[in-house]
Amino acid sequence: MPFDLTILGCNSAVPTNQRKPTAQLLNVAGRFFLIDCGEGTQLQLRKYKIRMQNIHHVFISHLHGDHYFGLIGFISTMHLLGREKELHVYGPAELKEIIYIQLEASKTTLCFPLFFHEFGFENPELLMENNDVTVHTIPLKHSLPCCGFLFKEKPKPRRMRKEKIEEYNIPLEAVPDIKEGGGYLSKDGELIPHIELTRSAQNPRSFAFCSDTMYNESIIPQIEGVDILYHEATFLDELKERAKQTMHSTAKEAATIAKKAKVKRLIIGHYSQRYFDLTPLQDEAETVFPNTLLAHEGETHEVKRTYDSDS
Amino acid sequence: MPFDLTILGCNSAVPTNQRKPTAQLLNVAGRFFLIDCGEGTQLQLRKYKIRMQNIHHVFISHLHGDHYFGLIGFISTMHLLGREKELHVYGPAELKEIIYIQLEASKTTLCFPLFFHEFGFENPELLMENNDVTVHTIPLKHSLPCCGFLFKEKPKPRRMRKEKIEEYNIPLEAVPDIKEGGGYLSKDGELIPHIELTRSAQNPRSFAFCSDTMYNESIIPQIEGVDILYHEATFLDELKERAKQTMHSTAKEAATIAKKAKVKRLIIGHYSQRYFDLTPLQDEAETVFPNTLLAHEGETHEVKRTYDSDS
Repeated sequence: MPFDLTILGCNSAVPTNQRKPTAQLLNVAGRFFLIDCGEGTQLQLRKYKIRMQNIHHVFISHLHGDHYFGLIGFISTMHLLGREKELHVYGPAELKEIIYIQLEASKTTLCFPLFFHEFGFENPELLMENNDVTVHTIPLKHSLPCCGFLFKEKPKPRRMRKEKIEEYNIPLEAVPDIKEGGGYLSKDGELIPHIELTRSAQNPRSFAFCSDTMYNESIIPQIEGVDILYHEATFLDELKERAKQTMHSTAKEAATIAKKAKVKRLIIGHYSQRYFDLTPLQDEAETVFPNTLLAHEGETHEVKRTYDSDS
Repeated sequence: MPFDLTILGCNSAVPTNQRKPTAQLLNVAGRFFLIDCGEGTQLQLRKYKIRMQNIHHVFISHLHGDHYFGLIGFISTMHLLGREKELHVYGPAELKEIIYIQLEASKTTLCFPLFFHEFGFENPELLMENNDVTVHTIPLKHSLPCCGFLFKEKPKPRRMRKEKIEEYNIPLEAVPDIKEGGGYLSKDGELIPHIELTRSAQNPRSFAFCSDTMYNESIIPQIEGVDILYHEATFLDELKERAKQTMHSTAKEAATIAKKAKVKRLIIGHYSQRYFDLTPLQDEAETVFPNTLLAHEGETHEVKRTYDSDS
């Protein structure tokens, strides 16, 4: 079951020839979540051979154009391609009107159901959940109301120890109960406890997307220990005053959040167009948090399954 | 003084990896006119090294997204780059609201003056003129109200014959009057007529942009004899029923319009995404109108200056 993140765009507001505005795609067990949707995201999806029709949930962090101007084109193209499945869009309240005014101008009645879900910016909110994952907002501090998103796999059941099936001659029909937490009553009338019959569950994997934000320690409890933290790093620390004015972060600040939140891996992005060579941003972050990677378009970051050692 | 057209995007509604949605740039004597602005146009301008800040007039033919979804990004980027000069946008009435609702959502007060000019769709209207050019709408027939645009150089004055300056010993200060149509009273009291002192004026160059339209002969009188006709050719003629249903044209129909309007050169575009190889579209059009070219992104079509032979 994959849990991987693909970068579709990694630049800040003004796109360059090399770098598109923000968009990312998270694949959790074959379900695709589009996170922000800057201008040209539909073309990036096409370029990296990702089927748009497999995306059912889109999350828009805030209404600066570099995070959502591609949404109307993405929706229109799915309509033109005859999509039938539902699409859910999560974002600030005004987004619905922005999309509908454009659909109305072209007299478009979408051929698929489109649902808008608006969220607030004060406290974390549960946006959606399915069998595999929950998605919460992460309130951020930016010049517009803005939220990041926390994707967390749901806890999985402990795994059956195959050798115990043989040892206690457990019939197959008893396995589901055991997986769900039960023990097994052997033929000798002995109750074999669940913990003996199973090994540790897969650790739930998690990804925190922190789009535009100034340095903000209040997010730390929520993102603590995540497998991947994406945190914007628009500037080098030598421009920290500029970062403060524009309510963005420096690479050093992003790394400080990563370190304090004890995350496993940090990906930085949302680079100012002034940086052609991005190495200094990575170098700066690594002085604080060594496991830092640069967001590069088209690259996929996988989170492998891990298990606690069995007690 | 240049008069040339650069293709920035040439595909129909669904963009492909190879072809972006409609956008063209006309350069008349160093003034740049952006015509339609599909998603990603700002990146195409950047790719082809065209300075966005040199564009002062944008014409939007209609409100199907593949003709205008890039406008808000284009405007936002010019704001972020600190533009100061005016920008004039010509388009259907709803366009203004669509742009402003997005500027308001991001609390953006533009740092440059933005003017919207709405037009009707019944009769040709003069949209703008400067010293060099006039721009009129060309009412088209499409599934949304839609206009093309006719760019026409203003008539130029006849050119001075240098040998006559010498022959009649004409002082330099008399030349502007002659250029504007006057004769010259020689020292002998003889009135040398304007026609003898000058040679033919440069022929006014012209470009007609006919974006989405079904076959529509009523445009012919307006576009007669233009140097370049861009006419959409979404389909091959074998799909002419599909063209009719969607109110688009076939390559053959575009060529028929070009032939009947006796234009000098036809450029076809707005290709359906079903065509990977575009040669059949060109071949089909050439059977009716031989001087047909395919619109290809990044290509520039120049209209050279011509003069009638002097009588």
